[in-house]
Amino acid sequence: MIKAGIIGATGYAGGELVRLLLGHKDAKIIWYGSRSYIDRKYGDVYQNMFQIVDEKCLDDNMEELAKQADVIFTATPQGFCASMMKEDILAKAKVIDLSADYRIKDVAVYEKWYGIEHKSPQFIEEAVYGLCEVNREDIRKARLVANPGCYTTCSILTAYPLAKEGIIDMGTLIIDAKSGTSGAGRGAKVPNLYCEVNENIKAYGVASHRHTPEIEEQLGYAAREKVALNFTPHLVPMNRGILVTEYASLKKEVTYEDVKAVYDKYYGNERFIRFLDEGVCPETKWVEGSNYVDINVKIDSRTNRIIMMGAIDNLVKGAAGQAVQNMNLMFGLPESEGLKLVPMFP
Amino acid sequence: MIKAGIIGATGYAGGELVRLLLGHKDAKIIWYGSRSYIDRKYGDVYQNMFQIVDEKCLDDNMEELAKQADVIFTATPQGFCASMMKEDILAKAKVIDLSADYRIKDVAVYEKWYGIEHKSPQFIEEAVYGLCEVNREDIRKARLVANPGCYTTCSILTAYPLAKEGIIDMGTLIIDAKSGTSGAGRGAKVPNLYCEVNENIKAYGVASHRHTPEIEEQLGYAAREKVALNFTPHLVPMNRGILVTEYASLKKEVTYEDVKAVYDKYYGNERFIRFLDEGVCPETKWVEGSNYVDINVKIDSRTNRIIMMGAIDNLVKGAAGQAVQNMNLMFGLPESEGLKLVPMFP
Amino acid sequence: MIKAGIIGATGYAGGELVRLLLGHKDAKIIWYGSRSYIDRKYGDVYQNMFQIVDEKCLDDNMEELAKQADVIFTATPQGFCASMMKEDILAKAKVIDLSADYRIKDVAVYEKWYGIEHKSPQFIEEAVYGLCEVNREDIRKARLVANPGCYTTCSILTAYPLAKEGIIDMGTLIIDAKSGTSGAGRGAKVPNLYCEVNENIKAYGVASHRHTPEIEEQLGYAAREKVALNFTPHLVPMNRGILVTEYASLKKEVTYEDVKAVYDKYYGNERFIRFLDEGVCPETKWVEGSNYVDINVKIDSRTNRIIMMGAIDNLVKGAAGQAVQNMNLMFGLPESEGLKLVPMFP
Amino acid sequence: MIKAGIIGATGYAGGELVRLLLGHKDAKIIWYGSRSYIDRKYGDVYQNMFQIVDEKCLDDNMEELAKQADVIFTATPQGFCASMMKEDILAKAKVIDLSADYRIKDVAVYEKWYGIEHKSPQFIEEAVYGLCEVNREDIRKARLVANPGCYTTCSILTAYPLAKEGIIDMGTLIIDAKSGTSGAGRGAKVPNLYCEVNENIKAYGVASHRHTPEIEEQLGYAAREKVALNFTPHLVPMNRGILVTEYASLKKEVTYEDVKAVYDKYYGNERFIRFLDEGVCPETKWVEGSNYVDINVKIDSRTNRIIMMGAIDNLVKGAAGQAVQNMNLMFGLPESEGLKLVPMFP
Repeated sequence: MIKAGIIGATGYAGGELVRLLLGHKDAKIIWYGSRSYIDRKYGDVYQNMFQIVDEKCLDDNMEELAKQADVIFTATPQGFCASMMKEDILAKAKVIDLSADYRIKDVAVYEKWYGIEHKSPQFIEEAVYGLCEVNREDIRKARLVANPGCYTTCSILTAYPLAKEGIIDMGTLIIDAKSGTSGAGRGAKVPNLYCEVNENIKAYGVASHRHTPEIEEQLGYAAREKVALNFTPHLVPMNRGILVTEYASLKKEVTYEDVKAVYDKYYGNERFIRFLDEGVCPETKWVEGSNYVDINVKIDSRTNRIIMMGAIDNLVKGAAGQAVQNMNLMFGLPESEGLKLVPMFP
Repeated sequence: MIKAGIIGATGYAGGELVRLLLGHKDAKIIWYGSRSYIDRKYGDVYQNMFQIVDEKCLDDNMEELAKQADVIFTATPQGFCASMMKEDILAKAKVIDLSADYRIKDVAVYEKWYGIEHKSPQFIEEAVYGLCEVNREDIRKARLVANPGCYTTCSILTAYPLAKEGIIDMGTLIIDAKSGTSGAGRGAKVPNLYCEVNENIKAYGVASHRHTPEIEEQLGYAAREKVALNFTPHLVPMNRGILVTEYASLKKEVTYEDVKAVYDKYYGNERFIRFLDEGVCPETKWVEGSNYVDINVKIDSRTNRIIMMGAIDNLVKGAAGQAVQNMNLMFGLPESEGLKLVPMFP
Repeated sequence: MIKAGIIGATGYAGGELVRLLLGHKDAKIIWYGSRSYIDRKYGDVYQNMFQIVDEKCLDDNMEELAKQADVIFTATPQGFCASMMKEDILAKAKVIDLSADYRIKDVAVYEKWYGIEHKSPQFIEEAVYGLCEVNREDIRKARLVANPGCYTTCSILTAYPLAKEGIIDMGTLIIDAKSGTSGAGRGAKVPNLYCEVNENIKAYGVASHRHTPEIEEQLGYAAREKVALNFTPHLVPMNRGILVTEYASLKKEVTYEDVKAVYDKYYGNERFIRFLDEGVCPETKWVEGSNYVDINVKIDSRTNRIIMMGAIDNLVKGAAGQAVQNMNLMFGLPESEGLKLVPMFP
Repeated sequence: MIKAGIIGATGYAGGELVRLLLGHKDAKIIWYGSRSYIDRKYGDVYQNMFQIVDEKCLDDNMEELAKQADVIFTATPQGFCASMMKEDILAKAKVIDLSADYRIKDVAVYEKWYGIEHKSPQFIEEAVYGLCEVNREDIRKARLVANPGCYTTCSILTAYPLAKEGIIDMGTLIIDAKSGTSGAGRGAKVPNLYCEVNENIKAYGVASHRHTPEIEEQLGYAAREKVALNFTPHLVPMNRGILVTEYASLKKEVTYEDVKAVYDKYYGNERFIRFLDEGVCPETKWVEGSNYVDINVKIDSRTNRIIMMGAIDNLVKGAAGQAVQNMNLMFGLPESEGLKLVPMFP
């Protein structure tokens, strides 16, 4: 039984991690870390957990936790994990960081986009980017995994096979993303109030969102070239779900079947990626509560572009589900353990 | 492995039954019945099931199904199950009817409130009312279970201990219920369109909703008196969830602790009923996707009334979850098999 | 042209007041008071007002405002208006207080339910309870109007004719109310975040909500007896709207036509009260954005109760619209000036 | 007083037209046409109009209507208006067609994208494309106005000045659009049910939506070149509102100020177009219920692209509001008469 500790257990991603780990037969949560709610019963903070989780919240003490746990999940604000990381911790426990601290290999890029100093750059090289379908073998051997961002996971996986196979012109790639509001976290801010989000849609972080360099770096590895793209997130009045609509010019003439074959080449055996039937557009509701990524494409011969669409549950495949998938890989468990979640509809 | 057939598998309750049975280790769906979608892939009707369910929809042939299945779930419009029922079917397979056909013992009451003739009244007496927490022992031995209505389940369980113990004046009982829109089914009707339901709340079926006599009958058994009450359903702009707020005058002076002790007496060992901490009001979101019933009460000494509140997920404890719970009882399985669902939040 | 000043112009009720007064041909806003946003452009706080309102927010200086304005609206937290009120202010300007400070005649009741000391009880007697359809003549002559609460307006108007005419047993009156989230205000609190409210319904303030004594007092005047009732508010995932469902036992046998005649007697000439056709239940969406109150009833002969239903837009008839209606009365203008708003659907 | 008749008065756009015309001081509705609801009271179909509109619905008799009315609005399915149009009608009444029948000058393009035969192509040339801010002078003189589509209005106005001034490379233009559900109409279809739309987002009509050729034609006139672009609509869980996010490569180096100056050149005097302050992204909620178009842009020097964003209320500026604006122009009234609507928030 893997002993798991969570730092930041009372955020939405932390809460989802609790939900998933409670259904995992080889893992057990031994630490519900939450600086804001120390000594308060976890089931009082999240009443859905009433009588399911009896433990109280503990402090964010990573050193102590490293002694007790086999794996530490950090679902914390940017900078926190980097500020606590030490060789001593990694020597004792594996760490899966749900923040951005170890996602970007170039520390200067990280510091520019996040506007903070990285406190432990010495671990960046070792950290494995935890996009399971892409880096599976490296993840198996990792001590420190940088769990990808929610927008990033969806954006990358949707375009990855076409980038890898040189089907699309990377210089033309535009990603228009739409997210449910849980991505904004549980902080009490006016723009996230019900009445401000409901019956409303807006773009935000235009040409400046922090997930941009992460997407560019990873798709750059796939395409083996430096990539600069436009990424525009939008806030949608729903709790969960990310949909990306990606546009790129085709580098050669291809049919839908050609493209489908490329996706099949990379994802044909992937349990959590579903390439939909021709003509069916992904919808976030169809993956809600599950670890699936639903993908499809449409070729527009009029404009010589391909429109790629992908949908995930931002709290599952975009955060907690992928973290558990990473844990499974790191501990040699079946990759889908605890993740055989059937999407809930309606 | 129990072989389960579903008649009406493409309604919302049928879809939820599929979701739950897919996670049940001792049951297997062998028949996806749907007259409207015969020969269409189930995963095309409900895209969340894409690559999870590969079967096609079959006709609503209960006789054939009885030969192949151990248990038949009928998630069909009122009257259908009654019109098909025969001794021959029950001799071969157990039946769990999610419609109202066998819920009401007095066939005249059924025919009056539902406005249709009952086609097989000879089975009404045998049918067991499948409210697991109340009729557990009878359900274990049943061939035919009448799965309770969604409003009914929540309304009865919220008041049951107080009715049973004579704490409340049954003549004063008023039930104000609020339901998500999935309760209205998947039929294409203008009043259920997004734009009509969203940003709106209304009462409907005032003093005439069909779940009224079902609640009255069952609470009447508990209170050992004839009960006539007001039940008012409301349509709420959300997909899932039922909340009931029930009002009754107290027959004697009681404290919150007294009342809590009464609930503990009946529900203390119930896995799926959670009597919340004092002062915490049930919220539908806290039980979403799960089989829980969350209950609490508030005593108002100013008016000598008690306000009882209960929340369920209408598609789980109010339909498919309870049906699976009934199946577990009927087949001697652990009652919570396939139902260890942690509520999803947010 | 009436010069109007608003204290608390950046709350939701204050914002609605701005919207309505901008469409009023005899009034002009000369003061956008908002302590939190002093010196910030109003149109930056509420971007819907961009290029419509060019003024900046000013401090909550009631004394200065009294010198400049003909009427002062206070859309402020409880206690603020009472703490600022002086004879000198009322001598210079009429005041319409949207808070609860002058609604309750018995200062002890106010202090008990609101938990604060009343700082200017000497004005309570003078203050007129601004429920226009009930107190029209007194309002015309008032200097200080206590604008009714949102729940209160809807609760009282829905039952008023039956209370007044002795049709219902006041001791049996139960009010189950449902409100959109704008009623909770624009404060940044976790329970009002989108993800907490969306897909959720709950009761709150059970047997303790502050609008209770206000409803009891006013319906007590109508019934000419002391009234104690149950009032239970619920939070509904929508921006605007209040629906009340009220239950009471009938004191005598009446038909729907009898009851309709009673409503017609009191409301037959009221522009803003619509008694719906028989069988039609009020829906909040049908009054959205308007000053209407939609009402209907259903008699349940089985239980000898009448179910009364009423719907308003909580920000219009429940706050800003009624405040404007009061202003019109106080200044001798046509009562509907600035309020000829057609409900917006969908 | 202009006598206005509406064919298709019971659709959502027709209903909005009724709302707006009721507030128009120089127009009066004399015909509520609705084939589906003939002889039914309009206020029964749309209960928000109860006691406001007492008329009954009439048949879709355009010939008779032309005799009685000064202006006819057709808010009908594609093909209807074209099938009824005759010189005799236009000789008697002005016609504002809210369908697509006269929007596209090339009848072959119309017939290809809409899949129907055009029954009166002889009027296409005469018809004026009713985008008021672009074709104002022609509209003033028109007998037949083709009221633009909702997506189209928002898409064109957002990019128009940059297309006109040659700032953007038209071959790179991509429009990612998001719409509330009222755009789908009031037809009873499963995909528009509350439970299917709520908590969900999806693209649809990818590379095939019928508004594409309309946008291409109009932006082609502006850019004086043939334009082929990608237009992708998405369905968003909200009632009203369209947001477009448009991407194009810059043809020359420009600053935000340069671009703002271009928008000011074309829209500086436009009452209904608001170019927002730098850094402020349009949100649909800020224009809800009003005739405004909110626009802003962001230049991304990293990719040499400009991101243009625009927001409208699809039922107002995207349908009924623009139709009234056209009527005002055609009858020589002040352009904003009946349209001084302050957006409603929240």
